Amino acid sequence: MSAVLPRHKLWLERDGRIALSDYRVRLLELVAERGSLAAAAEAMGLSYRRAWGKIKELESNLGVRLVASEVGGAGGGHTRLTPLGEAFVAAYRRFQQRVETAVGEAFAAELEPVLGACLADA
Amino acid sequence: MSAVLPRHKLWLERDGRIALSDYRVRLLELVAERGSLAAAAEAMGLSYRRAWGKIKELESNLGVRLVASEVGGAGGGHTRLTPLGEAFVAAYRRFQQRVETAVGEAFAAELEPVLGACLADA
Repeated sequence: MSAVLPRHKLWLERDGRIALSDYRVRLLELVAERGSLAAAAEAMGLSYRRAWGKIKELESNLGVRLVASEVGGAGGGHTRLTPLGEAFVAAYRRFQQRVETAVGEAFAAELEPVLGACLADA
Repeated sequence: MSAVLPRHKLWLERDGRIALSDYRVRLLELVAERGSLAAAAEAMGLSYRRAWGKIKELESNLGVRLVASEVGGAGGGHTRLTPLGEAFVAAYRRFQQRVETAVGEAFAAELEPVLGACLADA
């Protein structure tokens, strides 16, 4: 029989509204990587309008500017993360990594012994 | 402005199917507390049939008997957890508690400093 594995989902809330999540952090990372909200939206299969709406919603829920746009120029506009946006993305990824490690450790400490006993009984 | 708070959801999977979750553990705990699947189902607003189906599904996914029923007697049948069922519920609760503590600590270590910087800037 295949292994039983722990799964988890993480997010941040303010007043019951999502202030940051894995999905939204990925969108911000793509903005940083591609330098363009249009390219980030496309990579996630979102419309530009919807991606923009998500970022504006996050900024409103967190109370900070996460992205900055520069219009014009030969190649069209560019969007980048603000220094605070970059700090948030990095901090969220570290938060996520710590929790991931803790979930694995807690599972190994608490549930694996019981699962082992079951397999021994089976 | 109110606080930004970390939220999480935990569960166990085997082959992409849910092997245990907060909701299902609550159902098992209610069986243990009330000594009856009918009473446990009622407390969770589930039909008896649906509660029974959930428990059978968990037993099948985990490969262990979690509950045992005794039929008949003056007061009707009773359902209790097996020793392994009890061990699973207790181990899952300890797993959950460890993760909850870790989420709080990881949030305080990684995200609160950035959130504090934002409020200072606002």
